[in-house]
Amino acid sequence: MSEVIVPVILSGGMGTRLWPASRRTRPKQLLNLVDDRSLIRATVDRINAVSPGTTPIIVTNADHADAIERDLHGSGPDDPVLILEPVGRNTAPAVAVAALEIIAARGDSLMIVLPSDHTIANEAAFATAIGHAAQIARDGYLVTFGITASRAETGYGYIKVGEAISGAARNVAEFREKPDQDTASEYVASGDYLWNSGMYLFMASRYLEELQLHAPDIAAKTREAHAASTRSGTRISLDADAFSVCRSDSIDYAVMEATSSAAVVPTNPGWNDVGSWASLWEISDKDNDGNVAMGNIELADVTGSYIRGDHKLIAVVGLDDVVIVDTPDALLVTTRKSAQDVKTIVDRLQAENRPELS
Amino acid sequence: MSEVIVPVILSGGMGTRLWPASRRTRPKQLLNLVDDRSLIRATVDRINAVSPGTTPIIVTNADHADAIERDLHGSGPDDPVLILEPVGRNTAPAVAVAALEIIAARGDSLMIVLPSDHTIANEAAFATAIGHAAQIARDGYLVTFGITASRAETGYGYIKVGEAISGAARNVAEFREKPDQDTASEYVASGDYLWNSGMYLFMASRYLEELQLHAPDIAAKTREAHAASTRSGTRISLDADAFSVCRSDSIDYAVMEATSSAAVVPTNPGWNDVGSWASLWEISDKDNDGNVAMGNIELADVTGSYIRGDHKLIAVVGLDDVVIVDTPDALLVTTRKSAQDVKTIVDRLQAENRPELS
Repeated sequence: MSEVIVPVILSGGMGTRLWPASRRTRPKQLLNLVDDRSLIRATVDRINAVSPGTTPIIVTNADHADAIERDLHGSGPDDPVLILEPVGRNTAPAVAVAALEIIAARGDSLMIVLPSDHTIANEAAFATAIGHAAQIARDGYLVTFGITASRAETGYGYIKVGEAISGAARNVAEFREKPDQDTASEYVASGDYLWNSGMYLFMASRYLEELQLHAPDIAAKTREAHAASTRSGTRISLDADAFSVCRSDSIDYAVMEATSSAAVVPTNPGWNDVGSWASLWEISDKDNDGNVAMGNIELADVTGSYIRGDHKLIAVVGLDDVVIVDTPDALLVTTRKSAQDVKTIVDRLQAENRPELS
Repeated sequence: MSEVIVPVILSGGMGTRLWPASRRTRPKQLLNLVDDRSLIRATVDRINAVSPGTTPIIVTNADHADAIERDLHGSGPDDPVLILEPVGRNTAPAVAVAALEIIAARGDSLMIVLPSDHTIANEAAFATAIGHAAQIARDGYLVTFGITASRAETGYGYIKVGEAISGAARNVAEFREKPDQDTASEYVASGDYLWNSGMYLFMASRYLEELQLHAPDIAAKTREAHAASTRSGTRISLDADAFSVCRSDSIDYAVMEATSSAAVVPTNPGWNDVGSWASLWEISDKDNDGNVAMGNIELADVTGSYIRGDHKLIAVVGLDDVVIVDTPDALLVTTRKSAQDVKTIVDRLQAENRPELS
C-alpha cells in the first residue's frame, strides 16, 4: 500500500535561544542559519524529497503568514496551506487543527508532524524511519521518532523504549522530562533511552480519537476553532474566540504520554534541533581550530567557537568555546556551555518590552 | 630653593593595545577612558596641580597637533607649546628636542618627563616623589620614578635599586627588561625591584650632556632638527630632513642604562600605565561582581569583566574575566589575561592596511 503522508509543519515560537539573530518578527525558522535556505524551507524541501506526497500544511502564528508564504513559495507545485493561529497554544491544539483540516479536505490520512526548525543530515535514514513508522501508524499507533542518544544531553526529553512491535518499532515504556547531567549519563549508558525528537506520524483520526479521550477540552475547542475558521486562498484563519480559550498543552503531555497506543521508531538520521547556538555550532562546518566564523572575523588563539557577524570587524583573542553573534542593534557574547542561558537575557528584555526583541 | 620644573609630556603612538577604541587618528591619550577627560588632559591637569610652574611642552606626532591643541585649550593660562615630530623616533630624541627648547626658551631648568597616558590616583604621593627627585636632580642626577611592584607584572620593565643617595633616592643598580612570569615573581619577592614608570626628572642640560656622551648621533640630529625647526604660534615643527634620519631609541636604552648618574625615587602613587584593557579594568570602579560595564549592557552570570559599548545592546552570559569593546566598525572580544595580545590583531590589520585602524 503506497499512501500519501501529509506533512504538517509546526512553526510556532521565535527561537528564544537563538537571539539576537531570532526575533519576534523574524523567528528562527525563517533564518538562513545553516545554509542559504531558511530552516522551514529546508524542512519542506526535505519532506518533499524523502516522502513526496501532498502539499504541506503549516501551522503558524498569524503574524508570520506573509513571511512564511514568501519563503515557501516555489517549494512545490502548490503553495502550502497555512493554518493561522491567533495565539500560540502549544503543540497539542496545533496538531489537532491540522488533523481536522486533513480529514475535512481529503479524508482520513497519515500525517507526519515536523517542527520547522530541525536539521537532518541523513535523508535516507530519515526516509527509512518514516517507512517503519507509517507501517504501524496504519494499525492505529501514534508513532514518535526517537533519536539515538549520542551524548548525555540535558536539553532534550528522553523516551524509554519498551518491547518490539514490528520491525524497528517499539512500544514506549516511558516519556522522561529533560534530565539532570547524572541522569542523562545513566540514560545514555543504559542504551534504553532515545531523545524525544518532537516528530510524529499517525493517522489524523487516531490522533483526534486519543485527544478526545485524554484531553477532551482541547479536542472540543480545536473543533470549534477549525469549524468557525475563515478561509482566503491557501490561508485558514482559526476562529480567535474559540482558539484563544483553548488550553495550552504539548502533544506529549496531552496525548503521547497518556495514550496506550504510543510507539517509537528509533532512528539516527543526523538529527539536530538547532535549539541553541551550541547546537548550531555542532552541525556547522568548522575550520582546523574547531571554529565557525561567518562575517568579517579575525581570530588569534581561538578554538571551538561560533562567531557570526556581518560587515563589522569582529576580532577575538585568546578564547575557547565562545559564542559571539553580532547584529545591528544587539550583540551576544556567551559560551557554548551557557548558550541555553541566553533565555535569561531574552526573558529580561521581554519583561522590559525592549526593542531588541522585535 | 623653589624652582620651576618644566613639564614635558610625550604623546607618541596610538596605544595599540587599546584598539578598537584607540586609532591612528584618535590615539589612546586623546580618549576619555577613565573619566570625562582625555588621558593627556588629565596628565596636564595633574602636573599643574602637583607642581605648578610653567606651561607644559607636548612632544607629539604632527598629525595630532590640532586634536591635542583643542583638547588642552584652557588647561592653563597659556596653551601648551607643541613640539611636532614629522615621524616618531621613540623617547630619546623626543626628550632631547624638549630639553633643547627649554634651554633656548628660558635657560637651563629642571624638566619632568611624563607619558601622556598614565593615571596616578594619589597626587600627594606623586608630589612628594617629585620633591625628592628635584632635590638630587639639581645635583646632576638623572632621576627615574620607580613604582612599588605590587604584583608579578610581566608587562613592565623593572629597576633594581642600589645604595641610598639621599632621602628616598637610590642609585640604580640595574635596568631590567620585561621579565617572564617566574622572574617577575622573584623580583617582587626580593623587594629590590621597582617598576620602570617611564617618568623622569633632570636638568635639561644634564640630559643633553649624557645623551652627547652615550648617543652622540642622536644628540647631533636632534640639535639639527631643533635648530632648523619652523615656528608658528605655540607650535614648533621639527625639521623633517634632520629628524627623520635620527636613530630611533628609547631614553632608557640610549641614556638611563648607560649613564653613571642614574637615580631612582621609589614611589607608590597609585600609578597605572593604562597600557591595556586589563589595566583599565584595574583602575575602573567595579560593580559587586567585579564588572566594569559602560553602555547598554545586560549581564547574566558574568564576573571580573570589562565591557564597553555605546548604544547597541551588549548581552553577555556565563563568562568570567572577559574584555568586550564595541565600536561602530570594530568589535573586540578577549580576556583580561590575553589583553596584551590585542597587538597581534592590530599588527595584522596594519599589514593589510585595514580601515579599522584609522
